[in-house]
Amino acid sequence: MKKYQLMAPGPTPVPSEALLAMAQPMIHHRTPQYEALFAEVRAGLKKLFQTQAEVLPLACTGTGAMEAAVINTLSAGDTVALVRAGKFGDRWLEICKAYGVKVIELTAPFGHTVPAARVAEALAANPHLAAVLTQHSESSTGVLHDVRGYAQATRESAAILIVDAVSSLGIADLPMDAWGVDVVVSGSQKGLMLPPGLGFCALGEKAWAKQKTSTLPKYYFNLAEERKCVVKNEAHFTPAVSIVVGLREVLRMLEQEGIANVFKRHDRLARATRAGVEALGLALFCKATPSPALTAVVAPKGVDGEQVVAAYSQTHNITIAGGQGEMKGKVFRLGHMGYAAEFDVIVALAALEQVLADLGQPVDFGAGVRAAQKIFAEKP
Amino acid sequence: MKKYQLMAPGPTPVPSEALLAMAQPMIHHRTPQYEALFAEVRAGLKKLFQTQAEVLPLACTGTGAMEAAVINTLSAGDTVALVRAGKFGDRWLEICKAYGVKVIELTAPFGHTVPAARVAEALAANPHLAAVLTQHSESSTGVLHDVRGYAQATRESAAILIVDAVSSLGIADLPMDAWGVDVVVSGSQKGLMLPPGLGFCALGEKAWAKQKTSTLPKYYFNLAEERKCVVKNEAHFTPAVSIVVGLREVLRMLEQEGIANVFKRHDRLARATRAGVEALGLALFCKATPSPALTAVVAPKGVDGEQVVAAYSQTHNITIAGGQGEMKGKVFRLGHMGYAAEFDVIVALAALEQVLADLGQPVDFGAGVRAAQKIFAEKP
Repeated sequence: MKKYQLMAPGPTPVPSEALLAMAQPMIHHRTPQYEALFAEVRAGLKKLFQTQAEVLPLACTGTGAMEAAVINTLSAGDTVALVRAGKFGDRWLEICKAYGVKVIELTAPFGHTVPAARVAEALAANPHLAAVLTQHSESSTGVLHDVRGYAQATRESAAILIVDAVSSLGIADLPMDAWGVDVVVSGSQKGLMLPPGLGFCALGEKAWAKQKTSTLPKYYFNLAEERKCVVKNEAHFTPAVSIVVGLREVLRMLEQEGIANVFKRHDRLARATRAGVEALGLALFCKATPSPALTAVVAPKGVDGEQVVAAYSQTHNITIAGGQGEMKGKVFRLGHMGYAAEFDVIVALAALEQVLADLGQPVDFGAGVRAAQKIFAEKP
Repeated sequence: MKKYQLMAPGPTPVPSEALLAMAQPMIHHRTPQYEALFAEVRAGLKKLFQTQAEVLPLACTGTGAMEAAVINTLSAGDTVALVRAGKFGDRWLEICKAYGVKVIELTAPFGHTVPAARVAEALAANPHLAAVLTQHSESSTGVLHDVRGYAQATRESAAILIVDAVSSLGIADLPMDAWGVDVVVSGSQKGLMLPPGLGFCALGEKAWAKQKTSTLPKYYFNLAEERKCVVKNEAHFTPAVSIVVGLREVLRMLEQEGIANVFKRHDRLARATRAGVEALGLALFCKATPSPALTAVVAPKGVDGEQVVAAYSQTHNITIAGGQGEMKGKVFRLGHMGYAAEFDVIVALAALEQVLADLGQPVDFGAGVRAAQKIFAEKP
């Protein structure tokens, strides 16, 4: 018996409470039942996004929600600044290109970040900028970008800040209103511990003002129409009912744990993972503030990152992730977000020790686990 | 105890086999496991769509798939002909308007259809038409449009035929390749008996040729990129994994029943429902070929259709649907599609007899059920 373990940076495991809630008989979405369900979910999402704005759930995955953010606030010919330092930064670029939005790229090598000062400079040099786009947690490199700093810079400008929080919502603190983030985008399959299939967009007042003049075409992702329904606890089109049912369960779980504790848990899991990986003589790919969602690890010399992924899977029945795009083969990535707890990290590191040995690498068995244990032994 | 029954024209009940399959631990979508799952689903979808073309699943609901069909085959300034005789016909119009596609409307009063000859005339009078858009089953009126006839007309022209089969796939026969339908769009929550959250687009060669010149902007719904992944048994972006797992189950169930038997079952359920409704002295809203997916019933004189819906729900814990848009209050709609069988129709009609009595209408108790029983007693 090799128990299956999902330890990739999303989708993450779904707690049984949510799986069983979603396995209940289907309900209809134009009923008092659904309205009551949605009212609870709506209130919970506002808390989780730390905003007074409406959080709009969409039947799509994170990329759909990213596109919705762009097409509802921008117009063809607009120019935006993009924090581009990973594969999901590339995705913002591709979306903008598809819609004729011009992009000033603020790039950093993968594994690094773009300091807030560069965003401020770009805004100063280009007062016509319509928006700044960024990831919060860049899942391809394991870097956490300085959204708080970017928000300080954009708040004083005419531009809005659009943040992809797909792998940071419910993982790293992102107080939307307090920091002055204008658009937060997320998805269901990371910190929310649900199956993929639900995306989210939350727009602050500055973003809604830009929505009024946005000329990019949209229909399914028309957020103004969606909001009209959401305030009545309805959905514009048929919603992804079963995942919304699961959402109520996980929002209750997060509420019970307390959102501050949720962030602390992720921080501990991430620190323990990094300590364990380094104790095994491996290097972290991230050269900036690391994301608490996942850890990208440089593949050992002479080993392809894909071999590590394959060994985890074939020998230990554990799914982790390899590198994406130009990082393929160079890194492997361990997820520790969502439905993840301390002993999951212990398992991931114990498996890593075995994997390294399987691949003919020198291993001090127990060293990775020991380093993590020391972190977990710290008083919270 | 009042057992909950979902008898609306979608979402439909989900069989326990699918609910429990979807309640299994989450798997990752970039793994051999998912590829094997998807390979089976992909083959099953082609059979169900009766096509050699790839059926592209998208993480969205039916409206998203409708939009995908338009934006991948048309360009701004194109002119299309639209069969418009219900609320979902209106939806095609709204999507076209959002993208600057001009529409020649071929309208019929709600409850009626547009004969194929009118489509042929429109094509002859407007040789520059890029497409003909229609529903197969118009869920708002309970009418089945003559897709076969429309296909005969478009096949000889430069236009493509785009069919919304959201409430007809796996319900009414729609042999895409044999009839020469160029684009078939569907969703997961009707004939496929799944939760909403998965949309489908299948494009034939004539539609792919138009895709090459289509200039409407798209990213999340870029079907050419999606197809590149689908042929490798992958998804372009994160797929709605749990619903795809459920899809494998329902495709197996449909295969076991045999698609011809699935169509026969829906035809019997629909005929029995109509017979029962008429035996109770009520009038069918459909004045054309009725859809086997649902039956729209004219509300009795002096009764608002919404009262019927409320009585079903409050007294009998059964969800049916009211009228949409201009039909609100005038009709109520009974679904008999997807995971629906003979005794579900008996229950729906028995409840209708009770509801009519509750609303002070004269009722010959048993008359509705008797009429349905006679249909079910016919040799298949």
